[in-house]
Amino acid sequence: MIESKRKITILGSTGSVGTQALDIIKESQRYEVYALTCNSSINKIVEQARCHLPKYVVIYDDKYYIELLKALDGLPIHVLVGMEGLIRVVTDEEVDIVLTSVVGNIGLKPTVEAIKAGKIIALANKETLVTAGEIIMPLAKAYGSKVLPVDSEHSAIFQCLNGESSSTVDKILLTASGGAFRNFSKDEIRHLKATEALKHPNWSMGRKITIDSATLMNKGLEFIEAKWLFGVSSEQIEVVVHPQSIIHSMVQFKDHSVIAQLGVPDMRVPIIYALDYPERHYNSVKSLDFTQLSALTFEKPDLDRFPCLGIAVEALKLGGTMPTIMNAANEILVDAYLKDKIGFYDISDTILKVMNQFSNIKKPTLEDIFETDIETREYVKKLLG
Amino acid sequence: MIESKRKITILGSTGSVGTQALDIIKESQRYEVYALTCNSSINKIVEQARCHLPKYVVIYDDKYYIELLKALDGLPIHVLVGMEGLIRVVTDEEVDIVLTSVVGNIGLKPTVEAIKAGKIIALANKETLVTAGEIIMPLAKAYGSKVLPVDSEHSAIFQCLNGESSSTVDKILLTASGGAFRNFSKDEIRHLKATEALKHPNWSMGRKITIDSATLMNKGLEFIEAKWLFGVSSEQIEVVVHPQSIIHSMVQFKDHSVIAQLGVPDMRVPIIYALDYPERHYNSVKSLDFTQLSALTFEKPDLDRFPCLGIAVEALKLGGTMPTIMNAANEILVDAYLKDKIGFYDISDTILKVMNQFSNIKKPTLEDIFETDIETREYVKKLLG
Repeated sequence: MIESKRKITILGSTGSVGTQALDIIKESQRYEVYALTCNSSINKIVEQARCHLPKYVVIYDDKYYIELLKALDGLPIHVLVGMEGLIRVVTDEEVDIVLTSVVGNIGLKPTVEAIKAGKIIALANKETLVTAGEIIMPLAKAYGSKVLPVDSEHSAIFQCLNGESSSTVDKILLTASGGAFRNFSKDEIRHLKATEALKHPNWSMGRKITIDSATLMNKGLEFIEAKWLFGVSSEQIEVVVHPQSIIHSMVQFKDHSVIAQLGVPDMRVPIIYALDYPERHYNSVKSLDFTQLSALTFEKPDLDRFPCLGIAVEALKLGGTMPTIMNAANEILVDAYLKDKIGFYDISDTILKVMNQFSNIKKPTLEDIFETDIETREYVKKLLG
Repeated sequence: MIESKRKITILGSTGSVGTQALDIIKESQRYEVYALTCNSSINKIVEQARCHLPKYVVIYDDKYYIELLKALDGLPIHVLVGMEGLIRVVTDEEVDIVLTSVVGNIGLKPTVEAIKAGKIIALANKETLVTAGEIIMPLAKAYGSKVLPVDSEHSAIFQCLNGESSSTVDKILLTASGGAFRNFSKDEIRHLKATEALKHPNWSMGRKITIDSATLMNKGLEFIEAKWLFGVSSEQIEVVVHPQSIIHSMVQFKDHSVIAQLGVPDMRVPIIYALDYPERHYNSVKSLDFTQLSALTFEKPDLDRFPCLGIAVEALKLGGTMPTIMNAANEILVDAYLKDKIGFYDISDTILKVMNQFSNIKKPTLEDIFETDIETREYVKKLLG
């Protein structure tokens, strides 16, 4: 029996997750790439398109449209452009799965449209649930769309919950590497530059997320995502620092049994898990060698040295547009820290200031969220001068 | 809504597992104790009967029958005796679950009858699967009886497999504490006495099982049980020494994801898990405090210092009555070691000798297994003089 291959659209195929997804998709041969999309990385997407021959390639920035058309001339590939193009390739009837690996708020609109079309969403875009989790999850339920997490922590939690009823969960234990500055004092951290943080120990990640990992904001964003993905209260989520990043997260059940997911730190595992779910197939990812592992250790997160985690939990509790404000401010501030314009604690100090400045819109619409995001970014940029 | 309580028979209620089961059953209030049974511990079972007021109490050794009758006089409890009594209280229509916490081959016959009556079997009796796994598991399938493991390792594996298809399993990682002699050299171990081993680090267990833990025979028996319980090949089971006994076992899936079950070392967890399955309820067992845990480490088992593990795997591969021969010889030899009559390596040396001496009955019946068990014990006793 020849099973038909599942058709996949990758939103943001030229980024880190998109690229790794294409690697493992190619290896598995269980998927047909339906569409590839990017913002403006024309050389990379042309290369990907030649390799995977998708039905569509979408470029968001229309000034590259003609160049892309020329580059793919002669190949059986349709070229589309802009938000209209993105929405087309996530809603087409043929598509089974949409991998949203685009970075930033731009992923929100096509994700909503894919959900409305009932697609399986392999969700790697953080902003979707951080800013709009309260809208997205009920929407997915209403339209019969399944949201499967793609980052390693939420994929771990999802795997630990397999076969368990949600009524049996006591709490989620979200693990954190602790980031690049885990072993420094507050006075030392105050003077550490972004270049120091970019030597992150465990995961190969982008620059922005590496800083978020050093401030623990990354864990704060994951905390918010976990709340929406798994329908728990914020009191049911606990962050555990686990510097070796071998346990990717855990669930403690009411009977005090803990289920954990472990593996080498490799993003391809959660990617292919979401695409293959509920199946699991052999792949080229390295397996854990327990006889070679260093000892696994655990610590409490230090909210004094790393206030961003506490701020994120607070933003979640405040709800409304507060997580959007926090997230937008963080992005601008991390960018400034990366450019050496501000210090480490200016990030958390300024986020708090901005959260106090802005009024919170309770029960926001998606439009409210988009506008708040833009307003906050502009405000923080002005603040930085 | 008042749900009716599940009715449970405990085979071997006065032993370690039986006693702990009664503790947690009393606390949970979700169970009605239908029957308690023991070999000859009359004082203890009388105390248990007064506390739990079961419908039946069964004493296996008939010379205690009259004494038991008198002790329970005036209480609404029927007293039965012998194998007939045991079979009666595991097959009665009212019974939902049979916890087989009896030690030794005596558990096999009533377990088989309970399976034929379609009961849920909470299996704590090692001999059932070690000696007759090849008969028991197909029997359970044929009679629609569910066999749920009660020791911590197999319960962990069972929990890790929740919600997963068996076709997704790559291998089972059976964890072992390494036993009391883990850090001694072979020459040191050669001269160590049973009293040294009885200072076992992690679990509160009986004397026989503590020695089995020191020789790694306990892990060998669990290896055999795992093969039958989870329907994997012996190549799909790997023993990992994990001295802290926090991870109770793991499953590696084909995608190289590993799922582990963790908890404090407390037998009440696997007991209540098997009884409540698939539910999980709050209980008085301590929860893990990750910020207080010592580092988790892993090692390869050393088959040179601890040959019993290798012998058990070999017995499993030989199949037939070989695991029965090995298990029976081991019991007699461990008893002799406990009485300081033989040395540590006399256990493994003699088991090997006996396995070479006896002819293997392929595809044995239960009768063959019973006879082989008795013959082996007699042979080894004579050998020891």
